[in-house]
Amino acid sequence: MNLPKVKVGIVGASGYSGEELLHLLLRHPGVELSVATSRQYSGQKLTEVFPRFSHYPGNSGLNFVEPHPDEFGQHADLFFLALPHGVAHEYAGSLLRQGKKVIDLSADFRLDDPRTYEEFYEHKHPLPELLDESVYGLTELNKESIKSARLVASPGCYPTSILIPTTPLVERGLIHPDSIIADCLSGVSGAGKKASIPYLYVECNESLRPYGIPKHRHLSEIEQELSKAAKKKVTIQFSPHLVPVNRGILTTLYAAPKQELRSESSFVEFEKNLNDTYSDYYSESTFVRHLSNSGLPDTKNVVGTNVIEFGWKLDRRTGRLVLMSAEDNLVKGAAGQAVQSFNVMNDYPESTGLI
Amino acid sequence: MNLPKVKVGIVGASGYSGEELLHLLLRHPGVELSVATSRQYSGQKLTEVFPRFSHYPGNSGLNFVEPHPDEFGQHADLFFLALPHGVAHEYAGSLLRQGKKVIDLSADFRLDDPRTYEEFYEHKHPLPELLDESVYGLTELNKESIKSARLVASPGCYPTSILIPTTPLVERGLIHPDSIIADCLSGVSGAGKKASIPYLYVECNESLRPYGIPKHRHLSEIEQELSKAAKKKVTIQFSPHLVPVNRGILTTLYAAPKQELRSESSFVEFEKNLNDTYSDYYSESTFVRHLSNSGLPDTKNVVGTNVIEFGWKLDRRTGRLVLMSAEDNLVKGAAGQAVQSFNVMNDYPESTGLI
Amino acid sequence: MNLPKVKVGIVGASGYSGEELLHLLLRHPGVELSVATSRQYSGQKLTEVFPRFSHYPGNSGLNFVEPHPDEFGQHADLFFLALPHGVAHEYAGSLLRQGKKVIDLSADFRLDDPRTYEEFYEHKHPLPELLDESVYGLTELNKESIKSARLVASPGCYPTSILIPTTPLVERGLIHPDSIIADCLSGVSGAGKKASIPYLYVECNESLRPYGIPKHRHLSEIEQELSKAAKKKVTIQFSPHLVPVNRGILTTLYAAPKQELRSESSFVEFEKNLNDTYSDYYSESTFVRHLSNSGLPDTKNVVGTNVIEFGWKLDRRTGRLVLMSAEDNLVKGAAGQAVQSFNVMNDYPESTGLI
Amino acid sequence: MNLPKVKVGIVGASGYSGEELLHLLLRHPGVELSVATSRQYSGQKLTEVFPRFSHYPGNSGLNFVEPHPDEFGQHADLFFLALPHGVAHEYAGSLLRQGKKVIDLSADFRLDDPRTYEEFYEHKHPLPELLDESVYGLTELNKESIKSARLVASPGCYPTSILIPTTPLVERGLIHPDSIIADCLSGVSGAGKKASIPYLYVECNESLRPYGIPKHRHLSEIEQELSKAAKKKVTIQFSPHLVPVNRGILTTLYAAPKQELRSESSFVEFEKNLNDTYSDYYSESTFVRHLSNSGLPDTKNVVGTNVIEFGWKLDRRTGRLVLMSAEDNLVKGAAGQAVQSFNVMNDYPESTGLI
Repeated sequence: MNLPKVKVGIVGASGYSGEELLHLLLRHPGVELSVATSRQYSGQKLTEVFPRFSHYPGNSGLNFVEPHPDEFGQHADLFFLALPHGVAHEYAGSLLRQGKKVIDLSADFRLDDPRTYEEFYEHKHPLPELLDESVYGLTELNKESIKSARLVASPGCYPTSILIPTTPLVERGLIHPDSIIADCLSGVSGAGKKASIPYLYVECNESLRPYGIPKHRHLSEIEQELSKAAKKKVTIQFSPHLVPVNRGILTTLYAAPKQELRSESSFVEFEKNLNDTYSDYYSESTFVRHLSNSGLPDTKNVVGTNVIEFGWKLDRRTGRLVLMSAEDNLVKGAAGQAVQSFNVMNDYPESTGLI
Repeated sequence: MNLPKVKVGIVGASGYSGEELLHLLLRHPGVELSVATSRQYSGQKLTEVFPRFSHYPGNSGLNFVEPHPDEFGQHADLFFLALPHGVAHEYAGSLLRQGKKVIDLSADFRLDDPRTYEEFYEHKHPLPELLDESVYGLTELNKESIKSARLVASPGCYPTSILIPTTPLVERGLIHPDSIIADCLSGVSGAGKKASIPYLYVECNESLRPYGIPKHRHLSEIEQELSKAAKKKVTIQFSPHLVPVNRGILTTLYAAPKQELRSESSFVEFEKNLNDTYSDYYSESTFVRHLSNSGLPDTKNVVGTNVIEFGWKLDRRTGRLVLMSAEDNLVKGAAGQAVQSFNVMNDYPESTGLI
Repeated sequence: MNLPKVKVGIVGASGYSGEELLHLLLRHPGVELSVATSRQYSGQKLTEVFPRFSHYPGNSGLNFVEPHPDEFGQHADLFFLALPHGVAHEYAGSLLRQGKKVIDLSADFRLDDPRTYEEFYEHKHPLPELLDESVYGLTELNKESIKSARLVASPGCYPTSILIPTTPLVERGLIHPDSIIADCLSGVSGAGKKASIPYLYVECNESLRPYGIPKHRHLSEIEQELSKAAKKKVTIQFSPHLVPVNRGILTTLYAAPKQELRSESSFVEFEKNLNDTYSDYYSESTFVRHLSNSGLPDTKNVVGTNVIEFGWKLDRRTGRLVLMSAEDNLVKGAAGQAVQSFNVMNDYPESTGLI
Repeated sequence: MNLPKVKVGIVGASGYSGEELLHLLLRHPGVELSVATSRQYSGQKLTEVFPRFSHYPGNSGLNFVEPHPDEFGQHADLFFLALPHGVAHEYAGSLLRQGKKVIDLSADFRLDDPRTYEEFYEHKHPLPELLDESVYGLTELNKESIKSARLVASPGCYPTSILIPTTPLVERGLIHPDSIIADCLSGVSGAGKKASIPYLYVECNESLRPYGIPKHRHLSEIEQELSKAAKKKVTIQFSPHLVPVNRGILTTLYAAPKQELRSESSFVEFEKNLNDTYSDYYSESTFVRHLSNSGLPDTKNVVGTNVIEFGWKLDRRTGRLVLMSAEDNLVKGAAGQAVQSFNVMNDYPESTGLI
């Protein structure tokens, strides 16, 4: 493809999401990667730090620079922020003032209400005025707003795995939103690249463990988006678990259908409604693979891709709907999703550089 | 310890549960292992097949023999059956007729009602008369019946991980039994030692996947035992998942408290009820580690032991109770639990050979 | 890129190498995948069997067909054979007679001398006349012959990891070829996708084990190629090991320098010779990353790519040269290498479809 | 067993070797664990930090204490030091002055010559006078000296895996000691429990990598012990690799037989010599499993045990001897080996508490 190239910067390129952004953007036909910051690697060549990118086409001999937004801001027109929560907002503020566009992979701009932010993140939001402007970057559900956004808040990995299967059902009133239980398994890269005993190989290998139960921070954005879909405040159950894979999120969701299902024909009709609904929402979405009730997801089918796949079973015995989704937490759950927003913002085909 | 030694046989000693039984019984001070059958290894020395047991004290140069119950039955007084479901019953019938005691690790004698068996296992039960006699071998809840049993049906791995945390609450009427959702993760040894593509290293490593949803066979015994506890028919939701560890089951359970919980004081009171209840049931149980609401389980704390640990959180936001348990599927979920029953049947201290 | 498209077939598309070929060829801009055979999946849609390819650009709704060369041969001009050793030759013979080109990933045509084949594979070679014609498909060392080949025998995974670092040194007479010891670690996908107890998850996870020592079949092609380089018969030591990763080969090589190295200056000069030699051989090779003596390879830097990286240390204490290489056994060690040959045969840039 | 109990202390009980010592000593019938130090966990109950030991028989409600040797020294008669290299010597000096016995798991007292220590550890040895007194704690080869030792320097994990198979052959003059090449694979617990990026789960999983090549510190003790066996200075090649398992070392050794082997009968005779030699050295050693040339080792046969198993192949093609050993780096390579020395020092059967 011969696309016009956008000058792009990555701020915080040395974590796992940053590295995945490098992997995607160095091969993206519409991107000229013109700046990459890293406090840790400042001054070093990108390909010294990440030799595996040395033969990539977009590798122009770039050196990592210090993350001073006043300096690096001039070198690109759009910036991806792959920084920890609570750090990204500083850069976003400065870059927007310089007239740049920003796609932020952190949680800093995902919430509309600064009070919710304060409740879940335990400090006041430093730039509440930007919360109104920022757009939640779930392309499958929010494409039009993303097109014209200056500031995209790219969704969290767990929220993506939950919102894609549930939002259509909540919006159409097919399930009781407050009945939703999300039981999620995440690979260890979800914890980030930080030196910490609980994430050592020996601590994670041959270990299965819940954490952050019952009030994980990601609940705030999940409930916000489901509340918009339900047009009322929604509270759900969310239980993350750490399991020994590098990448991948497997989410199992439980929900009660709104309609009373008493006969086999009512079950069958409800199943048809599910299929129709998902078809309405996702038949044009390259990266959503709906398995309906004839397949079960497996993270190994999606790891390394921007695809989220999901299937479901309507249990005749309990009357519950069980939904199951799989995604790569670093691609559809982070860097890939951000590039998808980038494509939409720049009028590129949504899958450019993602297949 | 100087215990009188019981002559013991293992039928089907070459699978993963059989191997774990060998590991435990060869070092058990109250056991003389006098016979071990294996179709596959018949004629070979036990320590040729499993060199890692060569320096164990109970290794008496035993050879594996063919599984002909009429022949091997005379060599021991009590038999552990580590055979596939649908195969064990033949051996149990023959051995009981020879006056032997049997501890069966398969599902063949776990159900009371042959119609339930037929519904879940899809063929008629061949020895329905033994279903009345067999005792469900969950020592923590069933010790008295096990003491005098001739035929113990040792519980499944998933059922153990679910019944230990929920039975006391159902029996005491603290939770709505039909609200129970059990979301379970199992290591790959749970699938047995059979040559099959889906259990190859490459297929399981870096893979997270649900299976058997929504009607896995283990539901039958879980619901049977919970129904006894509730004194009414109980139906629950059960979702097993395969995750890449060798051993370990991590179960996350969701349940609705029966009592309405509206104020913080009612939550606190309910939490006290939970602690009191678990203390009543398990304070004398060596192998149950109750973490209350101050710890979360991790399979790596229990793998290689006969311990099941569990903790819980009472969610103020949703009102739901979240329970989480961890066990080793081959020990507390299979061979260790069977040895625990053996100890009770022979008046040994319950933890003999298990610590 | 707008390349003319070659009509291509894959014979044996359901194993691990076949699946990797699908991954590469479905996205290759110079390929129209027009036929894929699989005994096991015949009649099924390619994307039913491998849902992860459904959003790939080259997916034209292909169905797997039975592997009857007289029928499928007409549908393409060039065929990749991803079949077990001892099976590929039948297809190769028939396809060549039909005027097709063949790139064979098996060992069937890698040896020049039918007697060597018989010694290592323990049966007579069925088509010895093709051994003369077939070209050993190691593009970095054999590009010119590959260009005009009708039948390419793509190298084995272990041989590639050994020949790339050693051939230049043997050809230039820098090391004693008979002193070479190759100690190799392979991920489990190297064993193929066959249902077999030793490759079950539980058997491989948390296991490190040697196998095939001291006379593994791959020795035959390694020694053949090194003998050509040395212009005399070479015998080396080769020790493969199975380790718990999905993909990746890590090879550590030991060799004695020919020159006597007594002073620090002679060591330094020898190191310069090594760097110059590798530069002469590989400075134009996109897929060879020479780390010299300043870096050590790691399979995670190359997995998923067609790159082989290698480095070395010249030990002042022992005088030995230690060489270490890393590659992905399914890409550079199998499917990627085959596509690299394909590119050369069709005058495409060598890295087309491989970055 | 009713053994008199020795009062024992563990200094540095919170690392991986320390934890394994707890596991072994809490169940050892001849041990009263009376003190355990940990800077990190000082003041906390042992079973709070390691809940998995709560049901162990020797758990007397011990609290971790600060590592001040003047204070804790009085509470036990023998101390295990599980401290980092360069730290252990301070504790050893103080405890010996208090009349205690010490088994040190670090490298601080393994070398006889302070100059060798300085060469490999890059600082002067602080207590060179103790190097003469300390005994290298390889029970299989050094039992008599261990019996009467006040200070045992327990061998490193790699050295154990190398010395057990090679020492007898070097001592008997069967192989050229300088021809020895040791290619070793280690699980990640070998790197210790320290928060460091290269040992994170994501960095180690699906990664195979060499390190410390060509001059790893463990060479110093390996060469010292082989030099004693050879009665001349020996220099060998040693290449450690990090592979993704929790525990286990797999070592592959290459050596040239001293005798010229030209005929099949000379090979057969040499093989007989090997078997006789190993039988002379190890037939009474409970923890050495000699597989001869009829089996290959696998770490999964020894993990969790104090056994080292090894086998060998005499290659007719190259004339080289290939030896392969497997051990658990935390048991035979660390804590188990130290307990084995403890048993010898206290006249307990060598396998007490280790089976």
